Order: sequence, then C-alpha cells, then structure tokens
Amino acid sequence: MSFDVQDFLPERVQSARAYVPGKQINTTDWLKINTNEFPYAPSPKVAEAVTKACKDLRLYPEPTGEALRMALAKKHEVKPEQILLGNGCDDILNIALRTYSDTGDIIAYLNPSYSLYPVLIHNHAARGLPIEYLPDFEFPLEAATGADYRMLFLTSPNAPSGVGISNVSIRQVLSQKRAMTVIDETYSDFAEETTVPLIAEYPHLIIAKSFSKTYGLAGLRVGYAIGHASVIAEMHKIRDVYNVNRLSQAGALAALQDTEYYGTKQAEIMRAREDFQIFLQNVLRWKTLPSQTNFLFTYPQRPGDSEPTGNLAKELYNFLVEKKILVRYFSSHPSIESGIRISIAQPDEMEFLKSQLLAWTRNV
Amino acid sequence: MSFDVQDFLPERVQSARAYVPGKQINTTDWLKINTNEFPYAPSPKVAEAVTKACKDLRLYPEPTGEALRMALAKKHEVKPEQILLGNGCDDILNIALRTYSDTGDIIAYLNPSYSLYPVLIHNHAARGLPIEYLPDFEFPLEAATGADYRMLFLTSPNAPSGVGISNVSIRQVLSQKRAMTVIDETYSDFAEETTVPLIAEYPHLIIAKSFSKTYGLAGLRVGYAIGHASVIAEMHKIRDVYNVNRLSQAGALAALQDTEYYGTKQAEIMRAREDFQIFLQNVLRWKTLPSQTNFLFTYPQRPGDSEPTGNLAKELYNFLVEKKILVRYFSSHPSIESGIRISIAQPDEMEFLKSQLLAWTRNV
Repeated sequence: MSFDVQDFLPERVQSARAYVPGKQINTTDWLKINTNEFPYAPSPKVAEAVTKACKDLRLYPEPTGEALRMALAKKHEVKPEQILLGNGCDDILNIALRTYSDTGDIIAYLNPSYSLYPVLIHNHAARGLPIEYLPDFEFPLEAATGADYRMLFLTSPNAPSGVGISNVSIRQVLSQKRAMTVIDETYSDFAEETTVPLIAEYPHLIIAKSFSKTYGLAGLRVGYAIGHASVIAEMHKIRDVYNVNRLSQAGALAALQDTEYYGTKQAEIMRAREDFQIFLQNVLRWKTLPSQTNFLFTYPQRPGDSEPTGNLAKELYNFLVEKKILVRYFSSHPSIESGIRISIAQPDEMEFLKSQLLAWTRNV
Repeated sequence: MSFDVQDFLPERVQSARAYVPGKQINTTDWLKINTNEFPYAPSPKVAEAVTKACKDLRLYPEPTGEALRMALAKKHEVKPEQILLGNGCDDILNIALRTYSDTGDIIAYLNPSYSLYPVLIHNHAARGLPIEYLPDFEFPLEAATGADYRMLFLTSPNAPSGVGISNVSIRQVLSQKRAMTVIDETYSDFAEETTVPLIAEYPHLIIAKSFSKTYGLAGLRVGYAIGHASVIAEMHKIRDVYNVNRLSQAGALAALQDTEYYGTKQAEIMRAREDFQIFLQNVLRWKTLPSQTNFLFTYPQRPGDSEPTGNLAKELYNFLVEKKILVRYFSSHPSIESGIRISIAQPDEMEFLKSQLLAWTRNV
C-alpha cells in the first residue's frame, strides 16, 4: 500500500512551519547568550523542593497548582482565581488564543516581536495581522488602535528589541479597542512598569508571565496568566487539566519564596546590563536600543563603517562563533537584520565578551 | 464599563465543558484507588536523575527530548524519529487531533472510553462520533469499519473497562479504513499485546503511550507517540517546541533504564490483579470484566440481589468513602453505571479493601 502523509493532512498543517527556537548548545564549552536565559544556577531551594516532591510522583499533580497560584496572587496583589498556570508561557499564549478566538478570526500582533505568535495563529487556522513597529521600536499607536482584529498580542518589554511599551500607550489601546489583549510580560521583572494594575480597569486584558527569564527556570517550563477572574475561568476549559507537573509546581514555588536570592541576582543582571549598554554606546559607539530586559539589541559597526548593515552583523556573529560565543542574529525583518541580540551573562563572561567585541572592531 | 466575558467568547468555548478528572485527595489518610495510579513510589534513580538535572534548569530543555527518544526507540524496536514526546499522553492525543483533523471534521471514538476525547474534539471545533461498544465491551467491528470519519480514537486496553481490543480486530479496522487512527496504549505494559508491530504495515496508525501508569510517574507528565516517521514529523509542527521539561525528560529516562525495579513492580501488580479478580468472581460472585490493566471493573451485588444496579454501585461507593477508600464510580453511561472501577494497590491495602467489600456484602 503506497502511503503519503500529505493525504491525511489538513491544508493548514501542510502549509504550517514549526517555530524555530534559538540554538541549544553545550554550555561547558560555549558562552551561550542567544536565548536570554538567566546566567545563574537556580537557588539551592529549588533542587531541595523538587527532590522532596519526587516521592509523590506516582500521583497526578494538583490540577490547578493551588499552592503556587496562592503565592503568585500574593506577589501580584490579585486573587488566586485570577491566576492560571501554564507549561511555560508559550502554553499560556496558546490557551488564550484558543479560548478567545476561532478559525478565521483576525489576530493582530506587533512586528517584529516574538516569532511564535504567527505560528500559533496559523496552527489555530486564524488570520495573523502583523502591526509594524515605528522606527526605533516606537509603539505604533495609530495602527494598533485603527486596525480591525478580534485579539491583539503584545510583548512588553518587547523581544527581540528589549524596548518597553509604556502603560500610557497600553491604556490608550485598551480604552479604544474592546478586543481581548494579551500582553506577554516575560521580561517584566527587569522592567520599570507592569500592566497588572490595569486589569481592574480593563478586564479584557490578559497578562502572560514566566519563570524562564527572571527566575532562571527555562528548563522547568512554568508560565502563568493573570486576568479578570471570569476571563481566567474560561481559559481553564481549554487548557490541559494537568498541564503543569508536580516538580514544576514545587520548583517554581520554592524559587518564588527565595526572594533574597532572586532579588539579588536580578539586581546584578540589571547592573551588568547598564554597564554593558554604556560600553556599547560610549566605548564602541554602537547604536543600542534602551532595554528593560536581560538582553541588549545593538547595531555593530567598525570605526570606518558609515552605517550598520546585515553583512556587518552577520560578520560579527560568525566572528563570535569562532570564539565559542553564541549570540542571536535575526535575518527575518529589515528593522533587526543589521543588529544582534546579546543576553546578559555573569560579570567575568561579560568581560570576555567585551574583549572580543573590541578585538572585532580592531580587525584582530 | 460593564463587562461580560461571554461577549468575547466564541460559541465553541461558551458551550465547552472542561474535562473532569478523578478526585485528588490526601493519600496519607485515604486509600486512593480511583485514578489507576501506580501503587509504588518511583525508583530511587528517578529522584537521583531529577536532582542532578536541577543544576541546568536555567537552560531550555532539549526541544525533542533526544536522549529519552533514543531509549524509547530501543525499547520499542523502532527508530528515534518515530517517537514524539508529550506533556503527558493527553498532550499527545491533542497534538494528533490538531495535526490530522480540521474544524468540522468527524472524529470517531469508542464509547464508553476515555472521557477526554469528546472534550478535545469539542475544543478543536470538530464533530465527535461516539461508536458504542457491544455488550460486555465486545469490540464493535461493524460500526467501527462502517462509520464515516476522518480520525478514530481507541483506547486499548480500554478504560474504564480494562478490556483489551485484540490486534486481530485492530488489523481489520486499519485495513478497511484509511483514516488516521490513534490507539491510546496507556495501559499496554500490563497487557498481552501491543500494536507497535502494526505500524510498519499500517502507517496511518499513531500509538499513544504514557509513563503515568506503568512507570508510576503520573505526577511527572510524560507521554509519547510512536508512528511512521513521516506521520510523527508533521506532529512536531503542532506541538509546543518545549513541551517536555528537563526534569521530566531526566526522570522518565531514569525510570526506563531501571528495568529491574519496574519489571518487578509491574509483575507484582499483575499478580495482585489476578488474585483480586479471583476474589471478586469466586468469593463475592461479582461479574468482573477481564482486565489487561492495573484496575478491575466489577459489578457489585449482595447475595440476595437479583442483578447489579446503579443504586447498589453508588451504595458501595459511599460505604467505601466512609472507610476512607476512594474508588471510581461513573454515572455517565448505562453500561458502566452499575459497576465500580478499582485500581490495584499494594498487597496489604488490597487485603484491607477485600475485608471492607466482604463487610458490605454482609451488611455490616
């Protein structure tokens, strides 16, 4: 019997393209600063809690992650029923999309931003509407409020730019557009503002958050949504009932409770980011976007070059690969193809990186 | 501003009903034999591997779970590219459904069976077609081959009955129906047959498996699909790229490698099941379905009762709850409402259960 899997696929899947994540490599040899991972090991309390939770692994997890939701509610000054847990923030984005839109709906998202949005929208058979950022990642308020869509996805602070969207702009969108709006605040513990206080005023706002970046638990996959209790309640219908496992619940709770460890490390990262930004702008004279995250987006050029170009960015990327330093290069959009994105690492790693960037500018 | 979440919901979500899992209770006070969990703690090697994996939690997981896929491929004598990992078997079922069907498609499933199927189908805006089992859970071959559908979901061995579907029947379905067929083999390590050898002959077969029941890792959420390499490749487009976290990958791999521990425990459970079946049939004289799982479905009646009824089953359920024994009672379908489902526990727990069942029949 001849077999061709295409005969069994809906057109939607035939034309689907999987999301391509940043490269995963062996970090014992490499300085891996391409996917904005936290540069420090987890608090020892995470391993303690996880090890303890192993004894009950034969039992299903608590379906809603009650203990973790209660701790998160306290942190964000909301009620536990305003929190829904996900298998990473990506799960939250998918649940929100599948709860609040249908096949054929128009789903808007800022561009360039998280490249998962168009993948999720395509897989849901909805229609993606990219809304282009203004130059230098200024928020396109007119386009965001003027367009017609059922849902809107924003990332703030944005990736890959690192630039935040002010609550002033977000209020304007929410007050002018009665569409379910998802704000991905994965990086917000490194930022000046959060939109959590806006939920009371604008119940059509869902905030997605994550333990991956600010608690250094990318490998544990824990994200969560904060929203109006009735908005969150509907999302429970669509999520997988056991979407967050026992160890993830226990580990994330332990991290959240170790405020001393994570407060100190988050402050260190923000200091290192400021220091590196000064280096890029004042020493190398590279245009660098203002960041509210744990990474910087910068446009490399050598002293003699008239302006940053895609070729220069690729050249630097390849130069760093030879030195076993992995940064992120995006060829996907004109506004970012002449830059590179660099995650903030530990201080000695940042010194090594700086020396290599200097070497490149000097053609060494 | 008045706010009603219904204004934002597609009709599909308005009419959705969340899957209701079996009750989760505190097992220090209760004998919990309602959700077919493994009665033994995980191998100590699971906690060892998980604790070791904590140090790298700042890094994203390996997206495809390569090491675990290789070990599973070896176990099942297939190639690693024939395996796809999921955040529990439920994730696998959802990925298969979303990859191989579209809005409006007819999706058939055996009934009564896993009550998640109609939930997933509804949430995907597809149309569920229940195919009713014949009396005593005989496989309805004529209905299964005669109906018109795009996909078919089977559970074998079935839950809640425990009855297996023979490979002879499955071959007949696969050879007569050119529809993508998903066989949920969650319990198959307790069974006489597996359909894995059929994949070479019938590439439109996807097998879903789990670490929850036969490796006692329900709390870790690891499931996987086995299929033709081209069938599996398409499912990667739809799954979340980091759907199985680092600790789940490490823990499941350690369990898989501890063949001595799990081989011994699985054999103990099967012996206890046989012993309990004899007790139910020969001592209590209760009609009990033949089981290829770690549970038994039995129809309770007292010596004077003419036949099992829903009231008798509920009465026994409530009697056991008073003794802090939790079994599963289903009121959802005529073929099961007069029975109860009991998961196999440790030997001393089974003795306690038997004494309570005897007490109930004697009206004590």
